[in-house]
Amino acid sequence: MLLTETQRADFDREGYLFLPEVFSPAEAALLRREAARVFSLEREEVWREDSGAPRTAFAAQTYSEPFRRLGLHPRLVEPVMQLLDGPVYLHQYKVNAKAAFDGDVWQWHQDYGTWARDDAMPEARAMNIAVFVDDVTPVSGPLMFIPRSHKDGVLEAGHDLETTSYPLWTLDRETVTRLAEQGGIVAPTGPAGSLLMFHCNLVHASPPNISPWGRTIVYLSLCHVDNHIRQFKRPEWVAHRDFAPIAPLADDCLAELAAQQAAE
Amino acid sequence: MLLTETQRADFDREGYLFLPEVFSPAEAALLRREAARVFSLEREEVWREDSGAPRTAFAAQTYSEPFRRLGLHPRLVEPVMQLLDGPVYLHQYKVNAKAAFDGDVWQWHQDYGTWARDDAMPEARAMNIAVFVDDVTPVSGPLMFIPRSHKDGVLEAGHDLETTSYPLWTLDRETVTRLAEQGGIVAPTGPAGSLLMFHCNLVHASPPNISPWGRTIVYLSLCHVDNHIRQFKRPEWVAHRDFAPIAPLADDCLAELAAQQAAE
Repeated sequence: MLLTETQRADFDREGYLFLPEVFSPAEAALLRREAARVFSLEREEVWREDSGAPRTAFAAQTYSEPFRRLGLHPRLVEPVMQLLDGPVYLHQYKVNAKAAFDGDVWQWHQDYGTWARDDAMPEARAMNIAVFVDDVTPVSGPLMFIPRSHKDGVLEAGHDLETTSYPLWTLDRETVTRLAEQGGIVAPTGPAGSLLMFHCNLVHASPPNISPWGRTIVYLSLCHVDNHIRQFKRPEWVAHRDFAPIAPLADDCLAELAAQQAAE
Repeated sequence: MLLTETQRADFDREGYLFLPEVFSPAEAALLRREAARVFSLEREEVWREDSGAPRTAFAAQTYSEPFRRLGLHPRLVEPVMQLLDGPVYLHQYKVNAKAAFDGDVWQWHQDYGTWARDDAMPEARAMNIAVFVDDVTPVSGPLMFIPRSHKDGVLEAGHDLETTSYPLWTLDRETVTRLAEQGGIVAPTGPAGSLLMFHCNLVHASPPNISPWGRTIVYLSLCHVDNHIRQFKRPEWVAHRDFAPIAPLADDCLAELAAQQAAE
């Protein structure tokens, strides 16, 4: 799955790209079942909201076969190799729940802000690619982007240790207001199986989910192998240390597993 | 401004009606300036979030000339008289801020649930009509409705005194989930000056506003005069006790004021 010239130009200008229904309903259903299993695990990698609802399962590729395969999926890895112009490694892997009723806010931030400050990643030569595991609707706490905000580089940020269970380098209100006045705010929505790619300096956030529907999204943060992190302050399962280039699996690697489960 | 047969049928079936741009940009701007003034007042009617940001100005028609006129505006009062089939009085008047960054959640509830339990309003012969003072967008904490949920009558509710600064009879999660599976969830959005009418038993909520844009909406709760409240437990400025029928002003009552201010 390669991006067209138009798609590459869109990504460069806006800082994100939305690709609806890249994974089939059967592949998305496999991931949905697996996310429920993973969130039920008592592991240090599985973080919860103050309410007890699941928030994030880190490094799920290390304890889940479906998520391992997803992390090596050509529909995710190849377009990112194309945009980053070379081999990539997996810097971070998150299954983010945004649970029905309880899913809490992620404040306005840039991911590269964290990777630079906490992990000493040299350049913004890394990005996120996200898979909608559930349908994402305007009412279930969608991701919000400020288009074109990635052009401003790394912005000043403060380390927010209080708002939620997860420490985050968040932007001040004046900066968010200024950028949103320039670029607006978009909240891409679509069915389970859709893909969202975004630049690691794109300013984003997501509101709480007050709907009765879960809104799980899996995020792969992929980094050019030459640009690997230099500082190992965070646990290995938050900021990975295996910098070997990813060799993508076959395109049917998830579909095959879904078919196997259906046959059981 | 009278509703068509189709609009009346829509309202009856879905429980709400959205009418874009009923008030002009100049009328909306007048209300926006006045909302900012009202929220700056230190009065018992002006409630704040835990953060200090404004949440609700109750009974603003009693201390603001623009909001007094809005409460008597024929574009608000006449369609409600039509739907409730007779003269109406003003049961409650709220300017709800949903401030940029700080505007907090309103949990899932029915307004008539509160009016019946707290105010002993005999029947669900009352409704809300809301005016967008700012643009309401998918990213600024829009009102969310469960269409057709008004057909279920008054649902069991618990008195939530903890989530926010305002006590509210809220529905349990099983009920919200069941109704949303049946009716879905909609979040009507549109420019400042738009109108939203909804049945007093329609289940609704709104999420926090994490955007940098304020999202003020004015709510008139109008009740058929025969159906006035019987119990005076809440302050007069929350649940009004003047049951005299509203005589609407002229259609240009707000435009006139906006023109006066522009000329000053």
